[in-house]
Amino acid sequence: MVDGVSVTDEYLKNNEEYAKTFSGPLPLPPSKHVAVVACMDARRDVYRILGLGDGEAHVIRNAGGVITDDEIRSLAISQRLLGTKEIILIHHTDCGMLTFTDDGFKQQIQDEIGIKPEWAAESFIDLEVDVRQSLRRIEASPFVTKHESLRGFIFDVATGRLTEVTL
Amino acid sequence: MVDGVSVTDEYLKNNEEYAKTFSGPLPLPPSKHVAVVACMDARRDVYRILGLGDGEAHVIRNAGGVITDDEIRSLAISQRLLGTKEIILIHHTDCGMLTFTDDGFKQQIQDEIGIKPEWAAESFIDLEVDVRQSLRRIEASPFVTKHESLRGFIFDVATGRLTEVTL
Repeated sequence: MVDGVSVTDEYLKNNEEYAKTFSGPLPLPPSKHVAVVACMDARRDVYRILGLGDGEAHVIRNAGGVITDDEIRSLAISQRLLGTKEIILIHHTDCGMLTFTDDGFKQQIQDEIGIKPEWAAESFIDLEVDVRQSLRRIEASPFVTKHESLRGFIFDVATGRLTEVTL
Repeated sequence: MVDGVSVTDEYLKNNEEYAKTFSGPLPLPPSKHVAVVACMDARRDVYRILGLGDGEAHVIRNAGGVITDDEIRSLAISQRLLGTKEIILIHHTDCGMLTFTDDGFKQQIQDEIGIKPEWAAESFIDLEVDVRQSLRRIEASPFVTKHESLRGFIFDVATGRLTEVTL
């Protein structure tokens, strides 16, 4: 809500405009055989940052762009059922995940509602180290093994530019 | 890889073009206070479908657009640390998650590598039923309680149009 008005309704109006010029169904499998894993950050329109066309790549996003069981699930389905062959990981500067600790976040929730999340919040203190952590989690998974390329990047929210992080 | 050429490198060239006209950093918290949860499907550029502007909304995506612990984690961070107040869930027609069963997918992996995933694959057989399942998982979570609006939709990949699913 912004000033009591539903943003969801505003977006639904946008969708009506979008549908007017929509060009119809594309095939289900990604035509460029790519899966992207990126942070949910609002400033990152992955399609424009990478120049993705409709139907080209799976886009998986969460808080931090980290790799948990759910990203392993999504990547396993992406590779095994829909034939993707490249994985692109993208973290970014000025990430919210750098601004808190798991202990503090979970304690705050426990103090408020009496229940501590049983999951890790996946905060981190160094972007490059966490990109490597995500790359290694994929490398360590027995379920995500079909890719021919796995590369990690940091998106600079000030310049719009990607910088590669090597293992 | 397409014909042995790295698509990742192609996307990096696109990013160089993108950065040339990039307009600089926006604030970290989503300006429209919205979080979107959608499927990773390649045909769904969530920004264009909803007319999202840069910096307006968190975008969380996975295989199916389902709610697991990782989406609860992302939504909890989105609401508690970055102030989002509306949640928009989007499934879509012709979804890959309709084309297999958890049992079959996991058996196939077990047959190939000898290890059965310990996670659910989250396949489903009815789109509307699964949108409701996702809505209810959020309603049942003690950690995602700060929203003023929670609505679920199905995106039609043939028309580009969203249709609401009510509980």
